[in-house]
Amino acid sequence: MSVERGLLIVLSGPSGVGKGTIRKALFERENHNFSYSISMTTRNMRQGEEDGKDYYFVSKEEFLKRIDEGKFLEHAEFVGNYYGTPLDKVTEQMDKGKEVVLEIEVDGAMQVKKKMPESILIFILPPTKNALYERLKGRGTESEDVILKRIERSNLELGYAKNYDYVVVNDEVDKAVDKIIEIINAEHCKTNRFLDNYLEKINEK
Amino acid sequence: MSVERGLLIVLSGPSGVGKGTIRKALFERENHNFSYSISMTTRNMRQGEEDGKDYYFVSKEEFLKRIDEGKFLEHAEFVGNYYGTPLDKVTEQMDKGKEVVLEIEVDGAMQVKKKMPESILIFILPPTKNALYERLKGRGTESEDVILKRIERSNLELGYAKNYDYVVVNDEVDKAVDKIIEIINAEHCKTNRFLDNYLEKINEK
Repeated sequence: MSVERGLLIVLSGPSGVGKGTIRKALFERENHNFSYSISMTTRNMRQGEEDGKDYYFVSKEEFLKRIDEGKFLEHAEFVGNYYGTPLDKVTEQMDKGKEVVLEIEVDGAMQVKKKMPESILIFILPPTKNALYERLKGRGTESEDVILKRIERSNLELGYAKNYDYVVVNDEVDKAVDKIIEIINAEHCKTNRFLDNYLEKINEK
Repeated sequence: MSVERGLLIVLSGPSGVGKGTIRKALFERENHNFSYSISMTTRNMRQGEEDGKDYYFVSKEEFLKRIDEGKFLEHAEFVGNYYGTPLDKVTEQMDKGKEVVLEIEVDGAMQVKKKMPESILIFILPPTKNALYERLKGRGTESEDVILKRIERSNLELGYAKNYDYVVVNDEVDKAVDKIIEIINAEHCKTNRFLDNYLEKINEK
């Protein structure tokens, strides 16, 4: 019996919903086999950054060549620089049985679903409309104007939730993480993922 | 916000796999809202049985009329008697937020999926090929001949597992029950089940 393939988990959600906190708490859970994916970028390496650790740093020419060759699971341009998730690195981790977690924007998530329909798309929802405002305000890093713009964008982003496989409300981080773990465990019980491997295994015995 | 609708969970699996034990353990779990479905039958009421508790007892004429009217989620004939799951009783429980659990044969499960595509079909698998034989033998109630016939049938039944949504290996009852609970919780996070209710809720606040 070959090792059971890991899943690709995509987490998205509006600004201020607490995706980063959830992802961090997810990786702290025991008995799980999560793996980050390192992005590739054309932006300049900053002091203290390491190639292959913070990002894979490549030239714009190299990046565009890789887009043409279909080597990205998803990619985007942001203020003149390209960012993308290398497909081969992700499948390599999955083949080793790791659950690869991507925390990306809705646009990237839609690219992932198209390229790898078996990926699991989870949209994190705020418990109330006010929660986003309070969280962004609480950070104290942005002006009221910027916060209101982000909230407006968040409301737009909520409209994309319907394209995701699952939605999880972040009322408490631990509960949200429990739900994500349950989703992952349930997905591993899906007949199309598990049955062939099982039949192979019991026929070996 | 209306109450979140319960799920219809269908459990099947080969003879001797331990479905009954799993169902019993499932109902003993706390913080869950499981509900049995009482079957309808044309067989005679036995001493000590109660109408509406053990079964709904009806005449054959009444049963056949109900089949014609599409009032069963699934039904079957067994040694001259009819048995069926009344659709209205199941949806009534689900509307109250109960998770209705049906432990039925593969043929009935296929009828349920056709009639109610949103139902969750779970097939219980033995940990090894020998496990079924040992469990049936351990009961000490059947001859070697009967056991071998049931094993043969079980192997046939395993072939139906591919038509189920999920498969769960019964290596340990508690672990199998954990997995079923995880499947139920994950299914409640499915976007098409949860999102509309959520959007309704946060817009009320």
